[in-house]
Amino acid sequence: MTQSAPSPALFFDTIVGYQRTAAIKAAIELALFTAIGAGNRSIAAIAEHCGASERGMRILCDYLVVVGFLTKSGAEYGLTADSAVFLDRKSPVYIGAATDFIASPALIELFLADPAEIVRRGGTLQGEGSVSPDNPIWVAFARAMAPMMGLPAGQLAALADDGNGRPIKILDIAAGHGLFGIEIAKRNDQAEITALDWDAVLDVARENAAKAGVASRFATIAGSAFEADLGGPYDVVLLTNFLHHFDMAACEGLLRKVHAALVPGGRAVALEFVPNEDRVTPPGAAAFSFVMLGSTRAGDAYTFAEYRRMFEAAGFSGLALHELPPTDERVVIARR
Amino acid sequence: MTQSAPSPALFFDTIVGYQRTAAIKAAIELALFTAIGAGNRSIAAIAEHCGASERGMRILCDYLVVVGFLTKSGAEYGLTADSAVFLDRKSPVYIGAATDFIASPALIELFLADPAEIVRRGGTLQGEGSVSPDNPIWVAFARAMAPMMGLPAGQLAALADDGNGRPIKILDIAAGHGLFGIEIAKRNDQAEITALDWDAVLDVARENAAKAGVASRFATIAGSAFEADLGGPYDVVLLTNFLHHFDMAACEGLLRKVHAALVPGGRAVALEFVPNEDRVTPPGAAAFSFVMLGSTRAGDAYTFAEYRRMFEAAGFSGLALHELPPTDERVVIARR
Repeated sequence: MTQSAPSPALFFDTIVGYQRTAAIKAAIELALFTAIGAGNRSIAAIAEHCGASERGMRILCDYLVVVGFLTKSGAEYGLTADSAVFLDRKSPVYIGAATDFIASPALIELFLADPAEIVRRGGTLQGEGSVSPDNPIWVAFARAMAPMMGLPAGQLAALADDGNGRPIKILDIAAGHGLFGIEIAKRNDQAEITALDWDAVLDVARENAAKAGVASRFATIAGSAFEADLGGPYDVVLLTNFLHHFDMAACEGLLRKVHAALVPGGRAVALEFVPNEDRVTPPGAAAFSFVMLGSTRAGDAYTFAEYRRMFEAAGFSGLALHELPPTDERVVIARR
Repeated sequence: MTQSAPSPALFFDTIVGYQRTAAIKAAIELALFTAIGAGNRSIAAIAEHCGASERGMRILCDYLVVVGFLTKSGAEYGLTADSAVFLDRKSPVYIGAATDFIASPALIELFLADPAEIVRRGGTLQGEGSVSPDNPIWVAFARAMAPMMGLPAGQLAALADDGNGRPIKILDIAAGHGLFGIEIAKRNDQAEITALDWDAVLDVARENAAKAGVASRFATIAGSAFEADLGGPYDVVLLTNFLHHFDMAACEGLLRKVHAALVPGGRAVALEFVPNEDRVTPPGAAAFSFVMLGSTRAGDAYTFAEYRRMFEAAGFSGLALHELPPTDERVVIARR
């Protein structure tokens, strides 16, 4: 093969990215994948099941074939293996609700209102962005993202708790849905969890704790991790998807506070998007930096070297990095 | 290799499509590719050249490496071959301005305001969508898309005009930037062009005709192709990126009118996104149907069989389909 001719294909694919967002949002809201999973294969049957026009459904289904979510054979549509596992509401690992957060109107507006100005300014155009006090997007987050957390919550629990069933006190900072702490409580009936978040978000976490039957060992602290009295001392402090919202100085300050709230030998366990030192691999973790540019004033996807610097400046030692396949995230663990 | 484990990667890539749109819009507006093309390789140099913060530029550049528009070596950034050809303003085939139309706030709003409702209803949520009378989107189109039309305009001119330099009258319906007719006028100094479009759009076409030195052979008709007196008779009527905005009955009605405006033996030449009969290949043409779902009441990317039916019902014969590589479009030619 000789070198291929220059092509504008990537450029056009990228400009119309918002149309892909629109298509998958529509499909999830209409429960299109669930309809096909239930055996509806023709456009007429799918459209009727979803309460949509045949014209709209035919064009949407063809588009979803083009971008890789459906198969088509003659006039019949089917689910790909990935769509059957993750996008059919009947699947135990359905994650479609994530669109309610990741493609919420509020987040879309943050990115598309004036993207060049975000880059000029070097951060979100809306004050503190997503981390403003009591921002309702975190209630949406807690409800929308919980289903995605089953797998990493189990892995994280195994990293945070040694499995010996000894008494252990856990602080879950910015708990959201609360599932990371809840998973530890399910695994160890001597574990006591304290979840910290905005009060409206804690309603979701308390619901989840009650559903999991661990409410009696599930305490809460309402407010900002930067301002609240953390209580303690704790054996483990969880920082799941939290540090990336802030600049390094703010992270270091919070880590000092976390350090003071731990027993000697206690551990901080941070779930994070940690790109390699080149900052452009692996793609999921590296791209997350752009999410922080658009939605926060000074957050970032920090490298492990940067986390090491922040944790060590706050008094921690014994830094370790764990992979969390198949997710894009990693776990940073540090010891007091 | 055994079968790979189920992955939600495509789902997440697709939900955040709007972030890709934001990144490429920012890069084009800030002339990032032009800055790198001029030799600025470090973040400090690129940021200063573009008038942006270093933090914003560092995160944007890394993101553009991840999605394939830039290269990175150490702390130095470079253009990919495709970015150098198409996205550097100094390139003769720069097409970055297409973002002003394809990712304009008006089009984005059409798709993202309520995508599920578009599918339920089977068409745009805004009245006649993009084809409402005097819609200003077409002035943006005429200015933004002209640079992309150099290559197809040359190929289309060769299909429309036999190159013998004989007198020929051309009607260019929905002329936009006017470049398709202008290209024929440049090729054949006996060609007389009549361009039809909304009056504000014709200003752009007339500017382009003057720049090309063919203004004396460039007449105009302001208004709707469905309502205006087309004049004539013409040897060739161009219908470039127009029929896809309307339902088949409307297309057939317009084609009757075009048929009546042609000399016997005259030809209609339609530039179109024509998917294969399976409607899901090739990807660019097939995906275009979704663009019409979101932005029109009843438009579509029609197959060649459907075009054959419409043209023949309007009295045409001798239908032929021509490829237009490397574009996603094809040319349908029919004879009176």
